[in-house]
Amino acid sequence: MRMYDIILKKRNGGSLSKEEIEYFVEGYTNNRIPDYQVSVLLMSIYFKGMNTDETVSLTDSMMKSGDVIDLSGIDGIVVDKHSTGGVGDTTTLILAPLVASCDVAVAKMSGRGLGHTGGTIDKLESIKGFNAEISMETFIDNANRIKIALAGQTGKLAPADKKLYALRDVTATVDQLSLIASSIMSKKLASGSDAILLDVKVGSGAFMKTPDEAFELARIMVDIGNGMGKDTKALITDMEQPLGRAVGNAIEVKEAIRVLQGKSKGELLEVCLALGSELLVMAGKTENIKDACRLLEKNIENGRAYEKFLEFVIAQGGDREMVLNPEKLPQGRFVTELKSGERKYVKAIDGMEVGNCALVLGAGRDTKDSQIDLGAGIYIHKKVGEKIEKGEVIASLFGNDVKKLEAAASRLENAFSYDEKPVEKRKLIYGIASRNGVERY
Amino acid sequence: MRMYDIILKKRNGGSLSKEEIEYFVEGYTNNRIPDYQVSVLLMSIYFKGMNTDETVSLTDSMMKSGDVIDLSGIDGIVVDKHSTGGVGDTTTLILAPLVASCDVAVAKMSGRGLGHTGGTIDKLESIKGFNAEISMETFIDNANRIKIALAGQTGKLAPADKKLYALRDVTATVDQLSLIASSIMSKKLASGSDAILLDVKVGSGAFMKTPDEAFELARIMVDIGNGMGKDTKALITDMEQPLGRAVGNAIEVKEAIRVLQGKSKGELLEVCLALGSELLVMAGKTENIKDACRLLEKNIENGRAYEKFLEFVIAQGGDREMVLNPEKLPQGRFVTELKSGERKYVKAIDGMEVGNCALVLGAGRDTKDSQIDLGAGIYIHKKVGEKIEKGEVIASLFGNDVKKLEAAASRLENAFSYDEKPVEKRKLIYGIASRNGVERY
Repeated sequence: MRMYDIILKKRNGGSLSKEEIEYFVEGYTNNRIPDYQVSVLLMSIYFKGMNTDETVSLTDSMMKSGDVIDLSGIDGIVVDKHSTGGVGDTTTLILAPLVASCDVAVAKMSGRGLGHTGGTIDKLESIKGFNAEISMETFIDNANRIKIALAGQTGKLAPADKKLYALRDVTATVDQLSLIASSIMSKKLASGSDAILLDVKVGSGAFMKTPDEAFELARIMVDIGNGMGKDTKALITDMEQPLGRAVGNAIEVKEAIRVLQGKSKGELLEVCLALGSELLVMAGKTENIKDACRLLEKNIENGRAYEKFLEFVIAQGGDREMVLNPEKLPQGRFVTELKSGERKYVKAIDGMEVGNCALVLGAGRDTKDSQIDLGAGIYIHKKVGEKIEKGEVIASLFGNDVKKLEAAASRLENAFSYDEKPVEKRKLIYGIASRNGVERY
Repeated sequence: MRMYDIILKKRNGGSLSKEEIEYFVEGYTNNRIPDYQVSVLLMSIYFKGMNTDETVSLTDSMMKSGDVIDLSGIDGIVVDKHSTGGVGDTTTLILAPLVASCDVAVAKMSGRGLGHTGGTIDKLESIKGFNAEISMETFIDNANRIKIALAGQTGKLAPADKKLYALRDVTATVDQLSLIASSIMSKKLASGSDAILLDVKVGSGAFMKTPDEAFELARIMVDIGNGMGKDTKALITDMEQPLGRAVGNAIEVKEAIRVLQGKSKGELLEVCLALGSELLVMAGKTENIKDACRLLEKNIENGRAYEKFLEFVIAQGGDREMVLNPEKLPQGRFVTELKSGERKYVKAIDGMEVGNCALVLGAGRDTKDSQIDLGAGIYIHKKVGEKIEKGEVIASLFGNDVKKLEAAASRLENAFSYDEKPVEKRKLIYGIASRNGVERY
């Protein structure tokens, strides 16, 4: 087999065999095939696409390039949830204890990664003492005993994906759906869960800008998962504005606690209930979505979801005081407020711009080695469709650097647009993709 | 400027500016831009193409990456002829002295290169003592004094093209017309002639397999040349069968001598007359093609063309005896003949296969360091349209290795196909491309 022939075949619109895909993934990972040949293959894939068989093969090869975690020690069906990423996306912090409180095991590996804010692990580390570097034994033991464990990625998951992604990043071959899907799924499948629920975000604050793209990405990922023998579903959800009201790290933990306590309603809770209901059904806990949703709502009302969060934090070394009194969580020393000069309605909030403001404040990582400011962040008092009276605060910015705060505030103003007349609320869940196909709501 | 943005622009179908093209050519030549980014740009060009302005800019940047030869010391208009390459293509050996005998200066840089046979320089070196490694001074002096000089490429012509071509060769990005055209033209334009005549070959023995492709390549090259201020024309000529009857090195010199002596007619002479006529008109020697052709034919009849060849060989140190008695030129010790068992007509001769047979015999270079067997080669007694009586020889193979001779002979049989009924001769000149556009004959 020759890499040249594989490039030529794809360039001319052919379909690559499982063996050809394995050959190039394995060869690239082991430095036998040079960058310049792999990059042109990726560009050919950009132009000619890949069918489902090819995408499954690519995912499989990337998954097998590293460790595949064994979670068989955990009782019951372990379901993993993965979001394609957005702004104010605090779902994992809420969903994990909420589902665990229904006696369904949540055992999640989470990354830190680059982004407008830190990853789930970074956010949790704003609770003093919280430790995500737990052993595999503790991880599995916690998942069995208290039904919830959250750890940083251990071992080497899909190193081929890591190497390929780095190359795509500098060769304008990131935005191809089969490549995106196989990249996400290779890591998810290596993480060892029995079933996978995907939250594909769409809108200004997400990577997928249009519902058509998002549904197509969802379909491909669901096909990959099911093609590799794992029950896989995807919800397609709105990210045209930030999902929650908080964007940052400690500030998102605070919002998660309020949602778990039943003190905060709105889009973030709604998406958590939708995702959680799917998870309970996939785990075999309830027969249907309706029953599942009722069970989740009950566990918020009766305090079990919140108690599960507390139990989880304590089990992983976190300071209980900070959960009991969230005002003790880190918060920037300085605050700036965005106020309205007139009565109006929020028409749109550019999610990506809000994310960039959070980054300016120091809430995220610009490069791999950036330090996150856990107390920096934004709180959105007025979301799309909400009325603002003259003089009311639209958003608050928190930070420890006055200069950055000023820069972020002037930028944040441009993220909002308004209307004089009432504006309709946005649709929140666009549809679902499963082995039965795609259904638009 | 960032290479990433240049890739993205081309990938999305945009046109690159002169500055962007210069940036990547210069950066790649000087090792500041990595292989993997240049290769994806080339693949994006493969899919999205380049317009005339872009192709001219690319040619210009590659030309400027190295030396640009100054031929202003040569009197009159210096016209260079370049063939895109074929089998049995002995035109330069005939054309150069033929045109020089009409008092038009021919000053040609020629490569050795890889191929089924050697290049023009290799062929001439089968004449004992012939020296192509002459100084620039001698080169220009000979061109002025005897109107003909032929040298191996001196200096570093278009090193950017060399580096880019090596990358294209391993990334399946060779066969893109703008890239092919700019590669050829960057070297031609660096060679310093006042005008350029291209011979674009089309057919089984050429790189361009269809007339449409060949006309398009011709059009692009002519646009580049004229776009860079040099009068440039292209003839599109047939390479569906080998052009001459000889395929090899010394054997092609012999055929060239016979054509110059007026002893051999046929396709090779016809193409030389067509190209030579264009050259004389471009050099301002005659008003029109008809007059030019008459002058060329006259100089074959009166012996001047042959005498010019002899003068040229002597001027560059070659053994006059070998020109006066061509049977003294190298010839393989062993001969194998392909004979016919019945009366039939030659219907087609696969040029590429004949070329491969010559390569098997040792007439060409397989790798850069291969040694050429100057006496190895093939003589085709029967070309397309010619009748073969029972027992007549169709082709003779010459070589110094019996095993190779046997292998080549059995392969050569498959290069020929026949018909019981008379077959029409092939069209030889398909058309012309000039600043006035493309004209199909």
